[in-house]
Amino acid sequence: MSRLVAIYHVRSDARAIEPRAKAIAVEQSVEMPLTAIEDQEILDQIVGKVEAISDIGNGTFAVRIGLSRATLGHDAGQLINMLFGNTSLQDDVVLRDAEFPDDVIADFGGPHFGIAGLRERAGAGPRALTCSALKPQGLNPARLGDLAARFARGGIDYIKDDHGLADQSYSPFASRCEAVMQALRASGAGARYVPSLSGDLDALRAQIAVAKNAGVDTVMVQPMIMGLSNFAKLVRENQGVAFFAHPTLAGASRISPQLLFGKIFRMLGADALVFPNHGGRFGYTPDTCRDLAHTALVDWQGIRPAVPVPAGGMTIERIGEMLDFYGSEVMLLIGGALLEARERLTEETAAFVAKVKGYRYD
Amino acid sequence: MSRLVAIYHVRSDARAIEPRAKAIAVEQSVEMPLTAIEDQEILDQIVGKVEAISDIGNGTFAVRIGLSRATLGHDAGQLINMLFGNTSLQDDVVLRDAEFPDDVIADFGGPHFGIAGLRERAGAGPRALTCSALKPQGLNPARLGDLAARFARGGIDYIKDDHGLADQSYSPFASRCEAVMQALRASGAGARYVPSLSGDLDALRAQIAVAKNAGVDTVMVQPMIMGLSNFAKLVRENQGVAFFAHPTLAGASRISPQLLFGKIFRMLGADALVFPNHGGRFGYTPDTCRDLAHTALVDWQGIRPAVPVPAGGMTIERIGEMLDFYGSEVMLLIGGALLEARERLTEETAAFVAKVKGYRYD
Repeated sequence: MSRLVAIYHVRSDARAIEPRAKAIAVEQSVEMPLTAIEDQEILDQIVGKVEAISDIGNGTFAVRIGLSRATLGHDAGQLINMLFGNTSLQDDVVLRDAEFPDDVIADFGGPHFGIAGLRERAGAGPRALTCSALKPQGLNPARLGDLAARFARGGIDYIKDDHGLADQSYSPFASRCEAVMQALRASGAGARYVPSLSGDLDALRAQIAVAKNAGVDTVMVQPMIMGLSNFAKLVRENQGVAFFAHPTLAGASRISPQLLFGKIFRMLGADALVFPNHGGRFGYTPDTCRDLAHTALVDWQGIRPAVPVPAGGMTIERIGEMLDFYGSEVMLLIGGALLEARERLTEETAAFVAKVKGYRYD
Repeated sequence: MSRLVAIYHVRSDARAIEPRAKAIAVEQSVEMPLTAIEDQEILDQIVGKVEAISDIGNGTFAVRIGLSRATLGHDAGQLINMLFGNTSLQDDVVLRDAEFPDDVIADFGGPHFGIAGLRERAGAGPRALTCSALKPQGLNPARLGDLAARFARGGIDYIKDDHGLADQSYSPFASRCEAVMQALRASGAGARYVPSLSGDLDALRAQIAVAKNAGVDTVMVQPMIMGLSNFAKLVRENQGVAFFAHPTLAGASRISPQLLFGKIFRMLGADALVFPNHGGRFGYTPDTCRDLAHTALVDWQGIRPAVPVPAGGMTIERIGEMLDFYGSEVMLLIGGALLEARERLTEETAAFVAKVKGYRYD
């Protein structure tokens, strides 16, 4: 039976780490005293196994635990439940990484389009993609449509909703989609609108239908709020749609973002991965960002690479440095810093786009 | 416009806390520089407002932030998005508490049954309720049914699935429900089976239909894995069903369990709240547990009290102490420690039940 491997970083002293590792293996599998288990097959196959423990310094140990493939079934929610369900409640453990059996990766299948498909939609060559965000919350659909048109005339590739835009009275989802798509068509520019979906699976389906009807082919979702099972379902049901994944509620300090975004969101079908870039409003380090981007893009069991979208307080001044850091396999997302230009929004957007297009990618 | 109030605990030094608090208020509302907002109404109504900052010692500040009611709409996912979406990615902040506008509480409506209804189903007077768990994973439906019957003959009130039991090949949900309910009927005892639901909203609906069909009237869900919107939807659609909420993936070290379980899960409709008791396998303190239990039970806008279910490595030896601590308004859940009795499972269960029934509740 092939195994799912979870890799935890555990704070412990050297004497205590072996029993602690075994306790995690039990917690994440049968969750009961092994002395109470009568079946040898369950002890052999279902109980989690500590495969390795290594001291990585600073009172932290890397613990590899093998979990039974059979406990997963085919559900993405159960996948995260087995990887970190109860252990997420224990402060001394971080879920650092995971290795998935090939058939699990094939089962979920990864992005429909990935970075290549997103470039093709934008008519872009092998350069970084550009993105901005519609905000603030509270604007009505017409105002959001006007903003979108101004971004579009600046030549931007993708325009996403702020993740706070849901289905509120001041800007209902359907009216917003209509207004933005109409404004984009009128602008004559080729920018793609990426509305943010929210609500239960019924609402998500209704919204994606409305969006497709309005001509949208790319949407944003919030996998940790909608639930991974519903994310996977929506991806499976909408083969023609590209998905941006937003990191909201990901509490990524306890699950490594490289794993959660770079592997799991990608495996479940995210084409683009929004995450907080280092040096912005969030505490991710350059190493975390580099690992995440690498993991999102690396060859992996034939599934498409997802495009990393570093964001969170980015500015035009940082474009050169960000492209030096990420190279061309990236989508740059600048929101608030463009909106600060107010009446000069289109010009500022054009400057953003020109800087990205003019960068020397080697 | 009435406001939702989020209360964060923020690690900061005294000089930095004011701008930090303002930054959180912006992050959790408009998520952009205020200088880029042209509309006075958005600045007045939609932007989060720092209502108070107080130094609570040890380099930590309690920050009250008022968030616009209008940004919530009526979706539970959007509720948690507004409370902690992006801020969950920032290490210096814990979501400690929240105060909800009355109409939000009324909108979700709380538990269908609560502690009184769960007692009534169990035919129990004003005493603590008893519960155990079917495990380990890997047992087939017949074996799980056999276990359930032995718990039932010991006189237990509720028998829940271990939260790792999903819809796996070795114990598909439908066969498990059938087998367990049949075994319980044959036992002649009155115990109630609480199967654990999993998967996307379609799967959850299919499972709840199967369960009802088999005679089940109480189910367990995993709100943080299924997504709060889907939890609220399922509750709304199943008025005759009581819901146990499991804490898996709740990463409760960053969201206070008193808020997440005691308030939010209760408001969305959980009748029973499973959580890790102090002194077991998890790190919750007695104070955390006391606060959580109090919050779950306290009079709150007319919604029913939910029963706290302290669990996670509990034993018969601890019953007296736990009842001293929690009083009668509690459900005690002992799983593995009963299963360790193996062939004496029914007798050990009967000892558990006798101790709970024989306790002097004053």
